[in-house]
Amino acid sequence: MSTSSQNLTSYESLALAGPLNLSDGHPRQAPTESQAAILDQMTPLYRGAGHSTFEKVETHAHERFFSALGQKSAPIGTGRVLSCYSSSVAVDIFARALRDRTDRVGLLHPTFDNIPDLLRAWGHNLVPVAETALSAHDDSVFDGDIGCVFVTTPNNPTGWVMLPETMRWLARECSARGVVLALDTSFRGFDTRAWYDHYAILEESEVDHVVIEDSGKLWPTQELKAGFLVAGAGDLPLVDAFSDVLLTISPFVLALLGEFAADAADGGFARLHAMVSEHRVFVRNALAELNLPAPPDPESRVSVERVALPPGVSAGEAYTALSDMDVHVLPCGPFHWDEPGEGDSFIRLSLARDTEMLRQAVTRTASWLAQARASVGRPA
Amino acid sequence: MSTSSQNLTSYESLALAGPLNLSDGHPRQAPTESQAAILDQMTPLYRGAGHSTFEKVETHAHERFFSALGQKSAPIGTGRVLSCYSSSVAVDIFARALRDRTDRVGLLHPTFDNIPDLLRAWGHNLVPVAETALSAHDDSVFDGDIGCVFVTTPNNPTGWVMLPETMRWLARECSARGVVLALDTSFRGFDTRAWYDHYAILEESEVDHVVIEDSGKLWPTQELKAGFLVAGAGDLPLVDAFSDVLLTISPFVLALLGEFAADAADGGFARLHAMVSEHRVFVRNALAELNLPAPPDPESRVSVERVALPPGVSAGEAYTALSDMDVHVLPCGPFHWDEPGEGDSFIRLSLARDTEMLRQAVTRTASWLAQARASVGRPA
Repeated sequence: MSTSSQNLTSYESLALAGPLNLSDGHPRQAPTESQAAILDQMTPLYRGAGHSTFEKVETHAHERFFSALGQKSAPIGTGRVLSCYSSSVAVDIFARALRDRTDRVGLLHPTFDNIPDLLRAWGHNLVPVAETALSAHDDSVFDGDIGCVFVTTPNNPTGWVMLPETMRWLARECSARGVVLALDTSFRGFDTRAWYDHYAILEESEVDHVVIEDSGKLWPTQELKAGFLVAGAGDLPLVDAFSDVLLTISPFVLALLGEFAADAADGGFARLHAMVSEHRVFVRNALAELNLPAPPDPESRVSVERVALPPGVSAGEAYTALSDMDVHVLPCGPFHWDEPGEGDSFIRLSLARDTEMLRQAVTRTASWLAQARASVGRPA
Repeated sequence: MSTSSQNLTSYESLALAGPLNLSDGHPRQAPTESQAAILDQMTPLYRGAGHSTFEKVETHAHERFFSALGQKSAPIGTGRVLSCYSSSVAVDIFARALRDRTDRVGLLHPTFDNIPDLLRAWGHNLVPVAETALSAHDDSVFDGDIGCVFVTTPNNPTGWVMLPETMRWLARECSARGVVLALDTSFRGFDTRAWYDHYAILEESEVDHVVIEDSGKLWPTQELKAGFLVAGAGDLPLVDAFSDVLLTISPFVLALLGEFAADAADGGFARLHAMVSEHRVFVRNALAELNLPAPPDPESRVSVERVALPPGVSAGEAYTALSDMDVHVLPCGPFHWDEPGEGDSFIRLSLARDTEMLRQAVTRTASWLAQARASVGRPA
């Protein structure tokens, strides 16, 4: 199988039926006890949502979701939080509306490839922006005559987080330069360092902005989820583009997410973080004795983990060999949408899985890596 | 309120909180007894879907859905039925992929305005195609150097249905001319005249085609729904565009829809048709004594009904006056996406509502229409 012409989602699709699927970053672990108790109440939640107005159900869900994540200044109840089927649908809507303003976007590099693909599909020209340039407050971020900066924070796959001082600098600079600031915070729930009040900084800077929030990576709800497109860019036709795609998402889904958010605020996030951390430690320990390059993202707290391959082993090779052993991972080339070669020495493992399956898949991965490392450089 | 710059969905959005909402075409009636029994089982359905593979759940739902609608030759299990969040997301994905083939589309006129809006957003130039031209097998359908014909059947708002002989003619002509044939059959479930096996005709003609099917108009499931993008156009990058937007929809939603489809096949469609018919008769009877122009769509069986306004009364005027009386309907101008003026003498009422509310809204509408008719032409 070639690794060149496929997007990451197509790899993830091939992994769906596999027994050892560490491919997609969707949450596939069993629900916790308190989550299972919510799922026991699906019918009453459905009927309850049906007895209220959509607006009330939506506002209540927004309040619970944003407050669980520390986003106290999010503009709930103003009509500026558009509930979408998913974060990707939100990106699609934003990319379309953005054309009224610019067709040159500075985009974080690397990041999940459906973001550059959706932006490019709508005609945007992309300029790569490095995490290090942002963290260094480097004005080169604005090179290339861009009209928008698009940042995924926490980032997928690296787990890099834009810290408050960087956020303040970026919002101020974007505002001064008339550049739209777009944030995708889909992985925010995994990392408390991303729980400072983004909207307070955005509003204070008066920058034209859009934030894409997402419930879809956090809780094992069989893709019952929402992406929230928060519109702070006055003149972009976001509502028009939104209303071409949908009237409303399901009030039942909003009610369900509200319950999961309340549970998350009440200890659920702590349990989620402990699970992800335990699985990350397992991965690192399993690989520690293989003399691989050091973990590339030592500070990462998101639900995916990059693994650096032994010198001479490519991501495509690892992907194919592991698939043949029924272990599905992602080759990291496509995350590096501007320079796929830069990702070719990494694979990505998803951690939001049941522990036993994850251990089995990681053990098998470690065993193949040990073998691959040993055989590299040997005559064939 | 101006009727010129808004799309239909924005009108529908304003109606959501209203007590007498006949605006959107989404099903908002109470579930039947057997539908309520399915909704009682949401948690077991959810858990059951979680214990199977996505592929199995999806295939089972496809089988139940397509067979309930007579679509025996639909390519289930081939990877060519892409389950999307909604029919609008399916249209969006198709419109994007179609650019590889053409940017000139012959589109049914009138039809719901988010179809022309989504096509235009992706850069397509649209040529209006009349229902009468299709039914007459008129070659003028292919005027304008088009590379695709897009037909909504049954149509919204008119209820017009493309009959088998027209379908055969159109598929053959499109095939001979190298034109892509796109069908949106979202309202199929309401009209048994649209239950002949479309896919048998499409496959036999060897035409490049796409069909967009939809569960979203049929059953009161709080927007738990799916749009199915059926790909029969070999070289269009539909799967690529699909995978930029989503990995999979919810297996729980598919399982739920499968249950609703099975119920529909087992008497549920007959109950739905009886409800729609009863509501249509109520509307027509309530308006019969007003000496309005005759019902414009006498043969319609879909869940919406157009009403012809008295001469001299515009749709915008009716919309505003009825909104002030808490009755929300749609002005039909925007359905006529090429010539909005042609729709200005019609409003659209939705019939998929609880009977009591519908009667109240229709009675109020009739009373306003009687008054409006009487006052037209009188000196102010």
